[in-house]
Amino acid sequence: VILYDHPASGNCMKARILLRQLELPYERVQVDLFKGETRTPEHFARNPDGRVPVLELDSGEAIAESNAILLHLAEGTQYLPTEGLTRTRVDEWMFFEQNRIEAELAYARFLHLSGRDKEMPEVYASRLERGSDALAALDRGLSDGRQFLAGPGYSVADLALYAYVHCADDAGADLGRHERIRGWLERVEAQPGFVNDLEPLPPHALSRPV
Amino acid sequence: VILYDHPASGNCMKARILLRQLELPYERVQVDLFKGETRTPEHFARNPDGRVPVLELDSGEAIAESNAILLHLAEGTQYLPTEGLTRTRVDEWMFFEQNRIEAELAYARFLHLSGRDKEMPEVYASRLERGSDALAALDRGLSDGRQFLAGPGYSVADLALYAYVHCADDAGADLGRHERIRGWLERVEAQPGFVNDLEPLPPHALSRPV
Repeated sequence: VILYDHPASGNCMKARILLRQLELPYERVQVDLFKGETRTPEHFARNPDGRVPVLELDSGEAIAESNAILLHLAEGTQYLPTEGLTRTRVDEWMFFEQNRIEAELAYARFLHLSGRDKEMPEVYASRLERGSDALAALDRGLSDGRQFLAGPGYSVADLALYAYVHCADDAGADLGRHERIRGWLERVEAQPGFVNDLEPLPPHALSRPV
Repeated sequence: VILYDHPASGNCMKARILLRQLELPYERVQVDLFKGETRTPEHFARNPDGRVPVLELDSGEAIAESNAILLHLAEGTQYLPTEGLTRTRVDEWMFFEQNRIEAELAYARFLHLSGRDKEMPEVYASRLERGSDALAALDRGLSDGRQFLAGPGYSVADLALYAYVHCADDAGADLGRHERIRGWLERVEAQPGFVNDLEPLPPHALSRPV
């Protein structure tokens, strides 16, 4: 399989980690979203939304959306348990991640790290406030001694949430307030094959002074 | 089953439509998000994220996240086909919906309809711009004569996307530019049991003059 990828994307890191955990060999093709390479006719044919990651199967079919890639790869493995309501719990947390963590906190992080928060302070404040509220929701979800999000063990739901929660402080949020989240992050990082290989934004992604 | 619901929520409408299409009787309990009723200890116990819809099963277990509710209810029915990559295509579009339509366009719509766009014009402009870009992505996804999003027939992916795309003009977006989307919306509305029962925002949800 081919992973269309960028090393500074947390969404892409999700796919890299699961491919490693499943010991699936893959070809890695970098598509530089910060240079507009995800928004070309060639890449739109892989993903009409013009984003990475995209996983291309041996059949030539392309799968977009990081969490859809995780669910596809994890089907039938220990990383996607199906007993009782567990699959539904995985879905719940993964939709929460795309709606409340990725859209708010990850975008706030990009604005903050790239310097664009100074160009659009109200936008940054809105994303950070809503992203911080999402962290409070995640904290509540980890109450009652819950070790992992969707069931008794680690699943792709934990992997999906890890991507942009572990670096929430980069967005300007305060993980220090969330002891339960920090404990859960450590348990996720301790999983076999789990390697956080997220790279910093490249220099050309940084905002020029306004 | 019990649906914790609000008549002006597109996310809640998704569940109402599928329950009707599946001919599943349910009890409807209104939780007024505009009066803070979703953010009480009682409702946080149902959904740590403090939102509606929540579906409570006869076992007493509660399912949050509108798209997770759709996938749970549709499992094993015609509304969630599983041949080939179809389930993965459903997942792709449903994650896209939560990340790019709900988080951007639905929030822009709320700001616009409630009058809060005048209090935070930069925030509104950001959400509308990104939501309009998501509509362009959906339009590309409907190219090549595609009738429905995830396969040859209607699925919960179409239902999920319909919720906040059909009312994109309320957000200030321009569906008039997207002939393919308008054709697809008509095909979705023509499905048996499909009733758009989305109600306007209640008066107490409207912003007071700034």
